[in-house]
Amino acid sequence: MKSISFFFALIILALCFSSCRQNTSSASLKDAGQAAVLASWAETPCQVIESWVKAVTDTASPDFIPEADRIAVFDNDGTLWPEQPVPAQMLFAIDYLKARTAENPAWQKDPVLKTILNEGIGSLGKLDEAGLVKVMAVSHSGITEQQFSEAANRWISTALHPKFGKPFKQVVYQPMIELLQYLRDNDFKTFIVSGGGADFMRPWAEEVYGIPPYQVVGSYNEAVYELRDGKPVIMKVAGKPFLDDAAAKPVAIHRFIGKVPVFCGGNSDGDQAMMQYTSGSKYRSLCLLLHHTDSIREYAYDVKTLSGHLESALKEAEEKNWLVIDMQKDFKKIFSFE
Amino acid sequence: MKSISFFFALIILALCFSSCRQNTSSASLKDAGQAAVLASWAETPCQVIESWVKAVTDTASPDFIPEADRIAVFDNDGTLWPEQPVPAQMLFAIDYLKARTAENPAWQKDPVLKTILNEGIGSLGKLDEAGLVKVMAVSHSGITEQQFSEAANRWISTALHPKFGKPFKQVVYQPMIELLQYLRDNDFKTFIVSGGGADFMRPWAEEVYGIPPYQVVGSYNEAVYELRDGKPVIMKVAGKPFLDDAAAKPVAIHRFIGKVPVFCGGNSDGDQAMMQYTSGSKYRSLCLLLHHTDSIREYAYDVKTLSGHLESALKEAEEKNWLVIDMQKDFKKIFSFE
Repeated sequence: MKSISFFFALIILALCFSSCRQNTSSASLKDAGQAAVLASWAETPCQVIESWVKAVTDTASPDFIPEADRIAVFDNDGTLWPEQPVPAQMLFAIDYLKARTAENPAWQKDPVLKTILNEGIGSLGKLDEAGLVKVMAVSHSGITEQQFSEAANRWISTALHPKFGKPFKQVVYQPMIELLQYLRDNDFKTFIVSGGGADFMRPWAEEVYGIPPYQVVGSYNEAVYELRDGKPVIMKVAGKPFLDDAAAKPVAIHRFIGKVPVFCGGNSDGDQAMMQYTSGSKYRSLCLLLHHTDSIREYAYDVKTLSGHLESALKEAEEKNWLVIDMQKDFKKIFSFE
Repeated sequence: MKSISFFFALIILALCFSSCRQNTSSASLKDAGQAAVLASWAETPCQVIESWVKAVTDTASPDFIPEADRIAVFDNDGTLWPEQPVPAQMLFAIDYLKARTAENPAWQKDPVLKTILNEGIGSLGKLDEAGLVKVMAVSHSGITEQQFSEAANRWISTALHPKFGKPFKQVVYQPMIELLQYLRDNDFKTFIVSGGGADFMRPWAEEVYGIPPYQVVGSYNEAVYELRDGKPVIMKVAGKPFLDDAAAKPVAIHRFIGKVPVFCGGNSDGDQAMMQYTSGSKYRSLCLLLHHTDSIREYAYDVKTLSGHLESALKEAEEKNWLVIDMQKDFKKIFSFE
């Protein structure tokens, strides 16, 4: 990990020799902490991003995109924060079940739940898809959305990431936080389009990413409106889930956003369809694909991994000239706490 | 109908004697055409709305609501535009089917479609719910969302309302357009939450209501992502629809918006659940219920009607002190073309 002084030296170097400009607007200074915009990015990807943003926001440019159509979508797991050793929501689900074991003795009689409760995260590999779905369904239903939201928010603020030892809320990619802010400073609307649960991400996405709940699209299950003692509540129920992954991502973009994005950030084959969809925009679009290559500062994986398989999207990225980010080389800093 | 000069006299009177202020910000002037904010509202409802907005936007007020939580939801049919003689989308569906009869000879062999195609809007009363669902399903599937969006946009701009003789795009309630703008000027996010199809409303809601597609929540059906000749498309398919009405409205608000609204506008028992949900906000909320009472300038209906039954919501409005709008008395002007 680089020392703080070395990091500042790098910023100064970047400011002197690259085209990455200092943004002096009060909004961006407030949010990006007086640092250069895209300060944590290496020069080459920074130039590609900046030159695209300039081209599409300049009214005199043939590539100009009206503000109303500046829709940027981002995957979450592996794109805005790590998805290793397993996606955070799975850890949350296990912690949630463990904390409620005493009240639910029947769980110890269920082979899947018993395994997870007694053996923890290490036993996830033993479960098939039906088993994983059961863990998620049981931990994500039978409570009100308000109770669930509070539980998710508490967990994200207190549970520590197993590798980095920091609360999950802090374990987010600093370059991507800068990119989200840079796009918003240029009048883009930023959306999350993730396989993760919408109800799990929304309670903290506004504080952590600056993305309000109604711009967080994710997987979801059924819910029921009820009056309890005259008070309206939304109950989370385990019905037929909508899994926001792969070919379902463009469908979710259509269902929730209703416009074809012009920017897409992702990191796995599960993001490939929404990248294609973005590439199909009538405007000049930009697709950015993170390749996890830094086993020291984060993780290195692509084909062989439980979460975030990356293979065919990398091939299509080459064919279509999507911007592939080699995280080891292209991210000067991965986390703000480095 | 009032003459234009009488209308201006009323505005001047309102400006002199009521608390309804002239908003001089450039954004509102641009959008409200230099008229007074809420100019088409009678004094009493105007005061109720303004006093609530002042209370919840004043940082020194005990009722202050942070900007991020200023979520306002509006029903569409009967709340932002008429739903008589039948909801516009039904007329669109019939026109859409008629225009494609020649290419689809099988439709003439189907009893439901044959009736609609040959007898038109007058035969709608003969159909049961399954029949209506069939008309909507056939007219809203088997095409790409892009094609559907273009068809809806074309129709809304050219088809004439049977009573008012104007394109549907113009047949929107002027007071509600002013209210939408007034709320946005006070940093509310305005959303539509309608039983109408999201795909039908989104193509024109931005131009007509100033509401972007990702803030339009409505009924929807299934869709499939496909590559056709290498080009990505979203195909509309007739699967299991999500009908955004009654108790499904709070569920849709949770699914699409993820926050409890603080303002809700509606006009029928189908909006009652989302009004209850809004009333359950931790903040001081405002619910506004339109009562269609003007058979001359618009329509008069409540209990006896095919669309927009209003009975139990009116009762709950009385109990809970929701703002009931008597359209004949409380709307000085109903349409901009009056």
